[in-house]
Amino acid sequence: MYRELVLKRISPTKEEKENLRRIADEIIDKIKSYTDFEVKLLGSAARDTWLRYEKDLDIFIFFPKNFTKEDMEKYVEDIARKIFDSYEKKYAEHPYVRGNYKGYDIEIVPCYKISNPKEKASSVDRTPFHHEFVSRYIKGKEDDVRLLKQFLKNFNIYGAEESVRGFSGYLCELLIIKYESFENLLKNARNWKFGEIISFKYVDEKKVSEKFKGQPLIFIDPVDENRNVAAALSAENFYKFIFYSKMFFKEKDKIKFFFKERKKIDKTEAINKFKSRGTSLIGILIKRPDVVDEIVYSQSRKCLKLLRNYLERYDFKILLSEFFVSESNIMFLFELESDKLSKIKLHAGPLVNSKEEDKFLRKYSKNPYGEPFIIENRWYVFVERKYKSAEELFLNIFNKKDLKSLGIPSYIETSIKNHGFKILRNEDVFIDEFLEKIYEKLFPRIF
Amino acid sequence: MYRELVLKRISPTKEEKENLRRIADEIIDKIKSYTDFEVKLLGSAARDTWLRYEKDLDIFIFFPKNFTKEDMEKYVEDIARKIFDSYEKKYAEHPYVRGNYKGYDIEIVPCYKISNPKEKASSVDRTPFHHEFVSRYIKGKEDDVRLLKQFLKNFNIYGAEESVRGFSGYLCELLIIKYESFENLLKNARNWKFGEIISFKYVDEKKVSEKFKGQPLIFIDPVDENRNVAAALSAENFYKFIFYSKMFFKEKDKIKFFFKERKKIDKTEAINKFKSRGTSLIGILIKRPDVVDEIVYSQSRKCLKLLRNYLERYDFKILLSEFFVSESNIMFLFELESDKLSKIKLHAGPLVNSKEEDKFLRKYSKNPYGEPFIIENRWYVFVERKYKSAEELFLNIFNKKDLKSLGIPSYIETSIKNHGFKILRNEDVFIDEFLEKIYEKLFPRIF
Repeated sequence: MYRELVLKRISPTKEEKENLRRIADEIIDKIKSYTDFEVKLLGSAARDTWLRYEKDLDIFIFFPKNFTKEDMEKYVEDIARKIFDSYEKKYAEHPYVRGNYKGYDIEIVPCYKISNPKEKASSVDRTPFHHEFVSRYIKGKEDDVRLLKQFLKNFNIYGAEESVRGFSGYLCELLIIKYESFENLLKNARNWKFGEIISFKYVDEKKVSEKFKGQPLIFIDPVDENRNVAAALSAENFYKFIFYSKMFFKEKDKIKFFFKERKKIDKTEAINKFKSRGTSLIGILIKRPDVVDEIVYSQSRKCLKLLRNYLERYDFKILLSEFFVSESNIMFLFELESDKLSKIKLHAGPLVNSKEEDKFLRKYSKNPYGEPFIIENRWYVFVERKYKSAEELFLNIFNKKDLKSLGIPSYIETSIKNHGFKILRNEDVFIDEFLEKIYEKLFPRIF
Repeated sequence: MYRELVLKRISPTKEEKENLRRIADEIIDKIKSYTDFEVKLLGSAARDTWLRYEKDLDIFIFFPKNFTKEDMEKYVEDIARKIFDSYEKKYAEHPYVRGNYKGYDIEIVPCYKISNPKEKASSVDRTPFHHEFVSRYIKGKEDDVRLLKQFLKNFNIYGAEESVRGFSGYLCELLIIKYESFENLLKNARNWKFGEIISFKYVDEKKVSEKFKGQPLIFIDPVDENRNVAAALSAENFYKFIFYSKMFFKEKDKIKFFFKERKKIDKTEAINKFKSRGTSLIGILIKRPDVVDEIVYSQSRKCLKLLRNYLERYDFKILLSEFFVSESNIMFLFELESDKLSKIKLHAGPLVNSKEEDKFLRKYSKNPYGEPFIIENRWYVFVERKYKSAEELFLNIFNKKDLKSLGIPSYIETSIKNHGFKILRNEDVFIDEFLEKIYEKLFPRIF
């Protein structure tokens, strides 16, 4: 029932499929007119596992092994210049180009022509082998891949990139191959445990567990047994998938697992709802460094954790912590029980008659909030807090000369040095570009 | 040097000693005119180990073993009626009377005439044996006992009663007998460890430790090896004694170990000093139940702990907690980082995919502060606090019908039922009768 309804919305029509194929052929022909190397469409477009609103084509050029990275870069760029009005050079393990052609996002990726994935120089060299494997086994199950992708997209766990840390397209295809259908995958996922191992061939589970320790899902790559296809998946997203898999068989309405109701958020309403929580919001707004998403997200995540640790160390009680990235900004957001703390606090000192006693007593002998005193077997003293507000704490951190030594990641540091930072409090946090995301964090919903 | 100076202030003069002796003889003669039983002055007055501002006489009447408690009570009361203008009947393990005679506090205590402490019916029957032991060994060391008592008094750790939980007079005498002098006792006390065992005779330390487990100092009573003379001593006071013993040999000025500088506390100044702490005070004032100190203090201590536990359970951060007792009132006082908390808090739920998941999700499905959400492997939800202020919490506790079921001790409960309670906040806490004690707790001093 739901299957047809959902597929109708997400499967490309016959016409769309033909259109994509035609565009791909056009591009490949053009490229071939400039090179004698093999040129091939790979990825979901080639395997008919794409969603209708995705218009991505991954085109690979196969180079002989005597080409250097730099050779390939120059070569591919020359071609791009001839085909696209404009293009960008991107860097993963080695450079590739991306341009737009008749409304399609085209990536032209150089790779080595090798006959065994073990000879690979970088991870893109593995892609043709992935394609070969999936192509061979996915036939007839393409719609199940699409259902799975849409299901994951709906819960924001589709994609292996840093901004998502979810399930890659290739992982989706392998899961469908392994479990044969979308529903059967979900049925099985309900019983997954942290560290779950999936493989097409026999593996020594103990060794595999050891090797991929800390990774919630371990799907052994059929073309490279040393690789976990699900390496990018976060624990949180792993558990989300399990939970929604379980829910899928409990809820009557299956459609909501694929399409979220999107409400327009009213800012005033959001602010009023926040005020009724009786908590404090504090946000740090910085300019987004001019680097790729992967770096922005991984550094922001690291920075968020660092700031969180500072807040905790200084006794602030955190309800939520998150960062948001837009084209031009990054915001680190914390909801605190209160962003103000008492001026003094109780500080526990050493045991009575311990080695540290003298030093402690000397240190606090002139303490303005009373001298040390004994409770049970230990010394205590009332001391003034270093930071009485979260704003004070953050100002102190970000105004430090040597941000790097605090652990602030490099690009974030440079951004702060060059463009400064802004501290926003309570209603001021609700800036338009992040309004929806903030609302989602403050008032989470299961569907 | 200090010894003479201190003793001059605390030792009774020759005249005072003669006066005390004379009054004791008068009383004893009077009592003897009404009884043929043996009558004897015991206690520090009899052993010349009293401090000059103490004017207590403990007079014991020795009854044959065929007298019942009731017989002795009646007998002693008859005598009291004849001797004192007014007297009170007191109850320890059995009744005794207390009256005033020419400015002296006289206690007349009935006990059994026995030849071995093992025959004792109550602990007072042991007192004559204590007297006998101390009298025999204390000669020449009376001044050292006085120094020790004054030292302890100065730090509020003299007395075994519930309101102090410190060193009894008898324990002081035994300590001086054991260590031969005041200074030698202090020298040794510096190395005491929790559970320290002291005895005049050989003891099996393992057995003794087991028997008196949890007691910081174990001084085996020379007249009853089953009794720890220091049983009433609290850990805190034990450690205080060790600490001040240590300090005694480090500080030049020895006088301050015996006499505290007493400053008159100005209420306005105290309130202003409190305000500069940026904290909250909350006090609960109730009528003192009409029972002896022992019961008032032990029940108040129990009640304080209970209230403290409630505050902690509901996330209030306590800087200090104490109770104060006057003739007519009891106050339970708490200093809190803040007596107000955020309206909502982060509440951790069960693990994802655990047995408890369904129940949790159902419970919070209509939560006005957002639905449950996953962090890492666990469910969380933003929930409204039950108590947003300490006042709310205490009002809720004390307005409960069944205070006993909460654990509120009986006499405190009755007092609240009959006379109610009052919640005081911040400056209102500083009522005259407890002003000094509150000040001492807020601004502790080592000397």
